[in-house]
Amino acid sequence: MNDIAVKLPIKDRFILPEGMIYLDGNSLGPLPRNVESAVSNMVTDQWGAHLIKGWNVDGWMAQPMRVGNMIANLIGAPQNSITMGDTLSIKVFQALASSLKMRPDRKVILSDSGNFPSDLYMAEGLIRHLDQGYELRIVAPEDVQAAMTEDVAVAMITQIDYRTGRMHDMQAITKAAHAAGAVMLWDLAHSAGAVPVDLAQSNCEFAVGCSYKYLNGGPGAPAFIYVRPDLVGTLSPALSGWLGHDAPFAFEQSYRPAPDIERMRVGTPPVVQLTALEAALEVWEGVDMADLRTASLHLSEVFIAEVEAKCPELTLASPRNGAIRGSQVSFEYENGYAAMRALIARDVIGDFRAPNIMRFGFTPLYLDEGDVIRAVEILAEILDTKAWDCAEFKAVARVT
Amino acid sequence: MNDIAVKLPIKDRFILPEGMIYLDGNSLGPLPRNVESAVSNMVTDQWGAHLIKGWNVDGWMAQPMRVGNMIANLIGAPQNSITMGDTLSIKVFQALASSLKMRPDRKVILSDSGNFPSDLYMAEGLIRHLDQGYELRIVAPEDVQAAMTEDVAVAMITQIDYRTGRMHDMQAITKAAHAAGAVMLWDLAHSAGAVPVDLAQSNCEFAVGCSYKYLNGGPGAPAFIYVRPDLVGTLSPALSGWLGHDAPFAFEQSYRPAPDIERMRVGTPPVVQLTALEAALEVWEGVDMADLRTASLHLSEVFIAEVEAKCPELTLASPRNGAIRGSQVSFEYENGYAAMRALIARDVIGDFRAPNIMRFGFTPLYLDEGDVIRAVEILAEILDTKAWDCAEFKAVARVT
Repeated sequence: MNDIAVKLPIKDRFILPEGMIYLDGNSLGPLPRNVESAVSNMVTDQWGAHLIKGWNVDGWMAQPMRVGNMIANLIGAPQNSITMGDTLSIKVFQALASSLKMRPDRKVILSDSGNFPSDLYMAEGLIRHLDQGYELRIVAPEDVQAAMTEDVAVAMITQIDYRTGRMHDMQAITKAAHAAGAVMLWDLAHSAGAVPVDLAQSNCEFAVGCSYKYLNGGPGAPAFIYVRPDLVGTLSPALSGWLGHDAPFAFEQSYRPAPDIERMRVGTPPVVQLTALEAALEVWEGVDMADLRTASLHLSEVFIAEVEAKCPELTLASPRNGAIRGSQVSFEYENGYAAMRALIARDVIGDFRAPNIMRFGFTPLYLDEGDVIRAVEILAEILDTKAWDCAEFKAVARVT
Repeated sequence: MNDIAVKLPIKDRFILPEGMIYLDGNSLGPLPRNVESAVSNMVTDQWGAHLIKGWNVDGWMAQPMRVGNMIANLIGAPQNSITMGDTLSIKVFQALASSLKMRPDRKVILSDSGNFPSDLYMAEGLIRHLDQGYELRIVAPEDVQAAMTEDVAVAMITQIDYRTGRMHDMQAITKAAHAAGAVMLWDLAHSAGAVPVDLAQSNCEFAVGCSYKYLNGGPGAPAFIYVRPDLVGTLSPALSGWLGHDAPFAFEQSYRPAPDIERMRVGTPPVVQLTALEAALEVWEGVDMADLRTASLHLSEVFIAEVEAKCPELTLASPRNGAIRGSQVSFEYENGYAAMRALIARDVIGDFRAPNIMRFGFTPLYLDEGDVIRAVEILAEILDTKAWDCAEFKAVARVT
């Protein structure tokens, strides 16, 4: 990848509905153009024509590693340090369970209140289930470094806050964790494909993330897990499924983990879903992550300036300093739920997070400055005319 | 379903390669005809056109329950007692972890040596990870009932042996487990869609299974989990992900399980994969499971008789008594690996399981007696001419 740099945006690599301005790639990426034929080919010409033989002739069994290597290129990880499968919540569980075994004399899982709830829930479930006096300690995001005390077994931190876009300093926090003797686990759900990440440089032990946001893998695309290569051979997986076995098709009666990252595989890979993701990752051909970041910050700055000029009802909920903000911008507004629904009805797609956050993602792969300016014009119209103030938009329906 | 009974086979509901005789539906079902358009529609007209709105307007969020209810109809489970997601190995872990909590004074997970290795591996991982003196006790399949002693917390039994097709008596074993005070967990990987199952009647606490074998959901189709409805509200899930939360989109900081089977959901559902499965399950319209079983036994009996008449080198590895055999037939043959590869090269598809098992699945949805007779003719030719005895077929390649 990245042999020939492309100029952003690369809208023609996506299928975007006519007239829609899509500011929700931080929740679900749009459909990359080549996914349709890749999935159709996989269903008809692989599964339909080769049936069981597809596992070998179509490379399904190696796909989790192949796709993991494509993601590795985007987040500064070495080859063969990432594998794909399951959901992000399951991968969080795997990493946490392994981390606790690595620090048997420590009882604290440290996280922050800006973490995505499912990460916290998985930690709670693990703790309840182990029933050995573990504690989930949740501090404010700004207190994470100071909270790295010597009782912390593992720090489980999501780099970019799903509500506000606030971005943690990965290098500094990892350093603080290691100085305290803690294992570092990063959740990159809102980082991978959104901001430059240098996993190898950070020296963290674990990283996990999903692939349906900025990586555009489609709804329910599988998660990824990274383990620092020098450690992976020492881990005893809690979720020790057959595809993490050193010889899955020997059908031995006892588990014997693969020597490498494949031990973090569990069950049969979701081939249809992985095929969509593998095609989606071709979108990144020629994209330079530094260029992407520059473009993302520009779009975000334009958006903030335009909203603050035209929509005084809204209050910035994201950091004003771009250096500590990911690729999304959030505003607080007491009527945010109805206003977001009114905005969506006008084909400007963002989303809402309780209690009052209007959230907008900026993905320079398929957005340009004109889109951003137009989106704010429509938002301003809605606010000026109080178009949101009607039963249709105020009625509570589930917004994902 | 089942309003108007159909006559088997219903080959036109599948896309089967011309000339192929597919005896491996016990490993990966073939492509149902309506899956192609369902998946293509989901990718292009749902994801591509609706993007994030698909979660609501296309019913993606409710899909795991909707599909679970379709499977419930095939295995005698009440509505809203099954949900979909993850892989079978993960679902085994969920059920085992919950079972151990239900019997805190017992330390044994009972299984048998005919169980699929991944189930045993997941139990091993759970035990290692809990590190609280649990034991995985593996007995011979014929000794399961006698091994139901009062130290057994949970009996984890796969109803149909993946190698031999030997079928356990679900009602009798569940009764024995309950008489000993143990929790009963059934793995229905080779049962669902293959033989009549009456989960409600069995009174077992848990059942799990995969959907890519006899349910034809495609490679990596998600797993199912059943929890007896009177128990589900009392379980404390070890894998407590956000989609098992009572209000996932409230983004509360602490986990609060859904009151019903939805608490066994974990992360974001694999929508593309579930869409393939949902379409695949329409194949069962009008199919009576008793008719299916009759047809399956007939095909199996014909196969056994033909092989024993024409292929004396092979020794039956499956029970001769159809009443205790699932929908597959296995033969032992010292050159089984090469012979199976030679057979596959002739477009008769079965599979091989170490050390010497040639395995053949019979799925009356798309197989008739003529197929079975023809398959044995080709097998006999291969054996008579020793067509398997060449480097091409003896070279070890991974057979899935």
